Amino acid sequence: MKIIRSLTAMAAWSGGLVRKDVKIGLVPTMGALHEGHRALIRAARLRCDALVVSIFVNPAQFGPQEDLAKYPRPISQDRALCRKEGVDICFEPTVEAMYPKGFQTMVTLPAIAHRWEGAVRPHHFSGVATVVTKLFGIVRPRIALFGQKDFQQSALIRQLVKDLNLGVEIVVNPTVRETDGLAMSSRNVYLSPDDRIRAVTLYKGLQAGAEAIRRGITDAETVRSAMVQVVKKEPALTIDYLSVCDPYTLEPLPAVRSRVVLLGAVRIGSVRLIDNLLTTPPRRSS
Amino acid sequence: MKIIRSLTAMAAWSGGLVRKDVKIGLVPTMGALHEGHRALIRAARLRCDALVVSIFVNPAQFGPQEDLAKYPRPISQDRALCRKEGVDICFEPTVEAMYPKGFQTMVTLPAIAHRWEGAVRPHHFSGVATVVTKLFGIVRPRIALFGQKDFQQSALIRQLVKDLNLGVEIVVNPTVRETDGLAMSSRNVYLSPDDRIRAVTLYKGLQAGAEAIRRGITDAETVRSAMVQVVKKEPALTIDYLSVCDPYTLEPLPAVRSRVVLLGAVRIGSVRLIDNLLTTPPRRSS
Repeated sequence: MKIIRSLTAMAAWSGGLVRKDVKIGLVPTMGALHEGHRALIRAARLRCDALVVSIFVNPAQFGPQEDLAKYPRPISQDRALCRKEGVDICFEPTVEAMYPKGFQTMVTLPAIAHRWEGAVRPHHFSGVATVVTKLFGIVRPRIALFGQKDFQQSALIRQLVKDLNLGVEIVVNPTVRETDGLAMSSRNVYLSPDDRIRAVTLYKGLQAGAEAIRRGITDAETVRSAMVQVVKKEPALTIDYLSVCDPYTLEPLPAVRSRVVLLGAVRIGSVRLIDNLLTTPPRRSS
Repeated sequence: MKIIRSLTAMAAWSGGLVRKDVKIGLVPTMGALHEGHRALIRAARLRCDALVVSIFVNPAQFGPQEDLAKYPRPISQDRALCRKEGVDICFEPTVEAMYPKGFQTMVTLPAIAHRWEGAVRPHHFSGVATVVTKLFGIVRPRIALFGQKDFQQSALIRQLVKDLNLGVEIVVNPTVRETDGLAMSSRNVYLSPDDRIRAVTLYKGLQAGAEAIRRGITDAETVRSAMVQVVKKEPALTIDYLSVCDPYTLEPLPAVRSRVVLLGAVRIGSVRLIDNLLTTPPRRSS
């Protein structure tokens, strides 16, 4: 495995392969790799000829009050995981190279970006869309993989690729969970041992919503109430949102007619957790 | 020459060539091709293996009060010119294909985009940056050519390519002028015969500024006054701006120390004209 820090070197490596018709795959990450990332890397490894994992804690997607400075950066462990999983290039650009003096271009997706996570984190998705466009430009992948855990992010990136004709196939990999069901996240390390146990209640809430849909409930407000009831039982959790949405536009739906995504975000202590479930209603017998 | 209207067909053609290491050149236009475009096409033809000219009157770069509906669209003449100049592909996407339902992604460059033309046309440069990013994604050129006449546009696109790591070489071709000096523009057809004769005064004003710099004047306000004086002699012209700017950031400069761009915009009747000159001060003998 090669570690590349320079943008020019990365672009040269990619350019050479593109001109030889080699299929490049990219897994963009902020490091602090966990089993969710490992699953992404393994899925990518099967689908491309040359695999790049980028590790870049992107300042543009953090708000001023957020955890940029303390975001975990265990680079040696991350590289070891990549090496073990057969990654070809670990791309670790610097902030100075990605955002040099005079940098000003921003990529925005107003409709998707201002809801849910975007309502709480105003510039977050513009930062995500911009860095992903940059990474695609430098690495020139034919395929890129993202985790379903950040569902809104993956919906945004699908729309971005479609709108800007970036020509990259986007694959969204199912969320990897701890044995109790908590979605894997680099931010789970911030949880105290007690909060770690309580945190799974978010997932249990989403499951209650999915169960209601499977039982045939179509009224979205009833589904939402089922989720809220479960999450509220854990007083350590504060609900940011629990919603029943269209999986493409992320608009809240009044009724469950076809596949929906159940989106949830809670606060527990100083930690904010998100999770989601894709759910399809049962076929109606007519 | 092949005419391609479908985005998928265009991307497939380009993708095939990229994988064979063929160097694609792109001249993005809004049609109504004139001698300025012909010069761009000829310059491009010499610098690439496969040449695409796109013809797309981009609604995203027109304001609601602007001339989108009446913008000239002489498509048969445009195709004939392309054919004669050895263009391989005339790419003519539809508005519906470029901006389908649900489209929302915008690319913005706040620092460059809000000055000069951007001050008068608030969403213009965001529309330009977005469509150019899209065209680069579809056509995948290694080189793209733009006319110096739209100087701010070319500065914006250089910054865009740098910021988003689009990996396209940007070539800016000198402005082609009518025999009296008026910069070629698709909008010159809107000028009445009398206004057509008066219009050259903008260029004469810029020349007066360049002449002042060549004479050794370094105070930008004095250079500006020289331009204003000349343009004001023609009462049919209303000055929008005449300025002495840094050629990369387009910031107005207090003094001429190295190469500058003289930017000008005027109104004549209902027509708005822009022009510019790049000027280098004489070397100081010390």
